[in-house]
Amino acid sequence: TRGRVTLVGAGPGDPELLTLKGLRALTSADVVLFDDLVPAAVIDLARREATRVNVGKRGYAPSVAQSEITALLVALGKEGRNVVRLKGGDPSIFGRANEEIRAIREAGLEVEVVPGVTAALAAAAALGVSLTNRDTARRVQFVTAHTSDGKFPEDLDWRALADARATTAVYMGNRTLPELSRRLVAEGLDPATPAVLIERASTPQQRVIAATIAGLPEKTAQETLIGPCLVLIGATLGG
Amino acid sequence: TRGRVTLVGAGPGDPELLTLKGLRALTSADVVLFDDLVPAAVIDLARREATRVNVGKRGYAPSVAQSEITALLVALGKEGRNVVRLKGGDPSIFGRANEEIRAIREAGLEVEVVPGVTAALAAAAALGVSLTNRDTARRVQFVTAHTSDGKFPEDLDWRALADARATTAVYMGNRTLPELSRRLVAEGLDPATPAVLIERASTPQQRVIAATIAGLPEKTAQETLIGPCLVLIGATLGG
Repeated sequence: TRGRVTLVGAGPGDPELLTLKGLRALTSADVVLFDDLVPAAVIDLARREATRVNVGKRGYAPSVAQSEITALLVALGKEGRNVVRLKGGDPSIFGRANEEIRAIREAGLEVEVVPGVTAALAAAAALGVSLTNRDTARRVQFVTAHTSDGKFPEDLDWRALADARATTAVYMGNRTLPELSRRLVAEGLDPATPAVLIERASTPQQRVIAATIAGLPEKTAQETLIGPCLVLIGATLGG
Repeated sequence: TRGRVTLVGAGPGDPELLTLKGLRALTSADVVLFDDLVPAAVIDLARREATRVNVGKRGYAPSVAQSEITALLVALGKEGRNVVRLKGGDPSIFGRANEEIRAIREAGLEVEVVPGVTAALAAAAALGVSLTNRDTARRVQFVTAHTSDGKFPEDLDWRALADARATTAVYMGNRTLPELSRRLVAEGLDPATPAVLIERASTPQQRVIAATIAGLPEKTAQETLIGPCLVLIGATLGG
């Protein structure tokens, strides 16, 4: 029998933010591959008999190389297993889904993608704010605050990011926050623009640090942040 | 007893893309308010006894004014009802959630927001593509292709939208597609950039029209499109 591989967005942290379709895929999987951004409570929803494989950290220092994860997905699929690849948030947003999808298809296997709630949407919901506003925020943009080697991404379109009429969500936004803040203000963003850092959005451990884009780095430096952090920036956060 | 109002993202169309938390809110609601972008199959998940209120079209021509919807939410909450306000996709993305949240809070009522899968994520999943790419697409942006009065939004940051290193999702992207295509190319976007229109993403009626940003308007003009349309633009769609 032919195996199949399903990429499933595990959502932002709260296991209740998994979709019904994601749950269905998970409860029929033979093997579940996940990384450290996937909530443990979501992995727990898989069948007891399912094999669970931790393929390590996403973000700074992968403990398993992407090429090995991809090879494993293909090998398991070829063995005829029903494989679920769980990804934190949504697979299409900063999840390297394209590399996995291409390899699976090239191996002649079927691949399906189940979308999920990405962190920016969960953060907005937790804060009770809208990322768009008919008057003040008609463009929303998502970026990560570091390059693949963990450095500050100098080559992003900073003018687009400093647009006062957009809302910006910065994934993995903690480590390079001082550079981010300085750069946005240097590019013309009002230093008084509301900015919020949210650690572990949608979980019981959620922490919110609200300030201005100029003030957020100092306020954040006083906290010990260990979970995934998202930074939201824009006038719409002011209510 | 105090009523409560919960804004719930109904997801992009497939009722299976509702979250577990959204389903829970829906199955405990006394009253469900929804608009035309909410999938009928999601509304069907509410209790049989629940009152269902269609508050009309979102997008071009609201049949019920936003101020009336907001007033209704507040009035029902004050009556002590458990009210769910269903919004297509995710409440924080082009859903005017901020106006409803503010009014509910000002009335002294509790409001909770349950995020959902927004159309751009469902479209990416359906196409089996990633919206980000470590090399070619490190910024993702969402806009709507019309202003509140249905016109082409001349005053968006078009330079940001024409950035070859971003992926752009245009909500309600059908009606003004010729202007959009012309403007992006005029601002410097390569006419050969991959562009895809997806009608009713994630539903059995889903339709995909793939072309380049220069060619998409003509290819789309040959089709009769009646459902919600999303346009994705960017090199990452090329695989």
